[in-house]
Amino acid sequence: MSCTCGIDVHAHVVPENFPAYIGRTMPADWPSMAPAQPCHRHVMISGKVYRTVSDKCWDTARRLEDLPGMGLALQVVSPMPELLSYWMAPADAQQLLRYLNDQIAAMVADSGGRLAGLGAVPLQDTDLAIRELEYVVKTLGFAGVEVGSNINGVPIGAPAFDPFFEACEALGAAVFVHAIRPAGMERLVGPAPLQQVLGYPGDVGLAAASVITTNLLVRRPGLRIAFSHGGGTLASLLPRLQQGWGVFPALRDSIHESPQAQAQRLFYDTLVFDTPMLRHLVATFGGTQLLIGTDHPFNFHDRTPVERIEAAGFDADTTAQLVHRNAERFLGLKGPTP
Amino acid sequence: MSCTCGIDVHAHVVPENFPAYIGRTMPADWPSMAPAQPCHRHVMISGKVYRTVSDKCWDTARRLEDLPGMGLALQVVSPMPELLSYWMAPADAQQLLRYLNDQIAAMVADSGGRLAGLGAVPLQDTDLAIRELEYVVKTLGFAGVEVGSNINGVPIGAPAFDPFFEACEALGAAVFVHAIRPAGMERLVGPAPLQQVLGYPGDVGLAAASVITTNLLVRRPGLRIAFSHGGGTLASLLPRLQQGWGVFPALRDSIHESPQAQAQRLFYDTLVFDTPMLRHLVATFGGTQLLIGTDHPFNFHDRTPVERIEAAGFDADTTAQLVHRNAERFLGLKGPTP
Repeated sequence: MSCTCGIDVHAHVVPENFPAYIGRTMPADWPSMAPAQPCHRHVMISGKVYRTVSDKCWDTARRLEDLPGMGLALQVVSPMPELLSYWMAPADAQQLLRYLNDQIAAMVADSGGRLAGLGAVPLQDTDLAIRELEYVVKTLGFAGVEVGSNINGVPIGAPAFDPFFEACEALGAAVFVHAIRPAGMERLVGPAPLQQVLGYPGDVGLAAASVITTNLLVRRPGLRIAFSHGGGTLASLLPRLQQGWGVFPALRDSIHESPQAQAQRLFYDTLVFDTPMLRHLVATFGGTQLLIGTDHPFNFHDRTPVERIEAAGFDADTTAQLVHRNAERFLGLKGPTP
Repeated sequence: MSCTCGIDVHAHVVPENFPAYIGRTMPADWPSMAPAQPCHRHVMISGKVYRTVSDKCWDTARRLEDLPGMGLALQVVSPMPELLSYWMAPADAQQLLRYLNDQIAAMVADSGGRLAGLGAVPLQDTDLAIRELEYVVKTLGFAGVEVGSNINGVPIGAPAFDPFFEACEALGAAVFVHAIRPAGMERLVGPAPLQQVLGYPGDVGLAAASVITTNLLVRRPGLRIAFSHGGGTLASLLPRLQQGWGVFPALRDSIHESPQAQAQRLFYDTLVFDTPMLRHLVATFGGTQLLIGTDHPFNFHDRTPVERIEAAGFDADTTAQLVHRNAERFLGLKGPTP
């Protein structure tokens, strides 16, 4: 008997239509929509179908229908990552992302308090990204932003993004790191979905590791940052990073707090589709650091996120933390302590 | 009170000297040795110190001194992976690898039965690799070979290597897959050891995934293949691959047996430096599939591999499997059943 009190921090929006480009030369990868089967549309990028998505991506009423069955009281929505547009000229990306942010704000306003928003910012230009961050937090009232695991190949923990994280910390904005255009594609042998299935978690794992190796949370202890897909491969990397930190002087010098302790300052979603793995994540990262993620309403989403947590055999306190309390803390909905 | 009955399948050899190159134009990356601190030498590659290694890498008596303290009755030695030389012209690589294979054979002969060998083969040329495989198995009596997680960027599960695996299966040769020149280097932020610490497990994980997505063990059920570093990130990737296999028709079509079932046909070493992770690997891959790996005698090696297994709280049967019985099966020292 599942509660309906879950908070899902990992769910995506695609707008019903993309805006006309305003400017001189439209980027070749400016997205558009094309008709598909009933209740679906094709997202077209560079003349190809990037993904076929259902109307739950933009139709708030249709989306909300799913939430009770998933045990969710609140869903935090963010753009489909491929729309983050880090590869466009900054002003072009900002034009598209402003449209997406406003669309998300309209959905949130329409939801009767059952949706919240995470915005998108053009991180290929730190100054512009900080201005858009201020807009989504101060004007739209979003809890924070979604960012990529890498920005045009530069991992999110790299020093280049420090001014942005400084602004996030100052504004109290939550940062949700989602896999995007992953490393390791040249190692996949098989059909295209392997990018999402194997490439994404690898890139998120390295993104989380980059945040640890650059001491981001040691330097900005007030920052609230979460990683998609259960932190991807980080759970497998962490014990070796911890051991290496004890063995290699160069790592001991450059990493200022134990990797394990730093990993326990980060948040991770529960999107791992597997109870033993979920238990392992709680044991590794701590019961205070996991929050629901579903990838709703894409095909490859977790349909039973709350049931899965309730079935894992955690104590009542840990269950409540995973189902909603950690998300409240991450989103800044309640006070700062667990 | 630890037993001294362990079998370590992951330990490395570097020869005291490298041979003079015989041929017209010596490859720029032909390795050589240079003096270092007492009991150590520098491995020089392309004019730089690649790694400084201790005399335990080549001195059999010095190496054997360490084994009882590690709880080991038998250690299976293979070349330091960077010596596998896949990037050289095939004939040049074969010249170097033949030397390494003969050096390993001499160490094994000198060890009073406490060392066994895994050879190296020039996998950039499948025919030549099969000829060297036959040499190390038939002439030198090795249990099998060490291969890279990728061969010049091509993952080890790719169809190109199928004739080689066919020969391994036919000869009953064990295959030990070790991380080498990993993908994802562009995502690491920090000093050089992060390649070994974070890059290696990522590449091994994708190598193991490539073996699953190409159905290698479904096609060659008699093949015995093991992955270094606990299978790297595979444990984190597997639940998502399993779920994706159920969701994406393209994956269902191309992967002919469930990823989870395929993963439970592979072997993995225990080299994860962490008891909860070791327990998680046993739960994920099965108690019949884990065998000791240490990376001895490099600095970053597991000094207490048997103690670590004994401390994990497995039942006596599982403990014995991990400590020596699975390795006996992998190496073909005993019958083929667990």
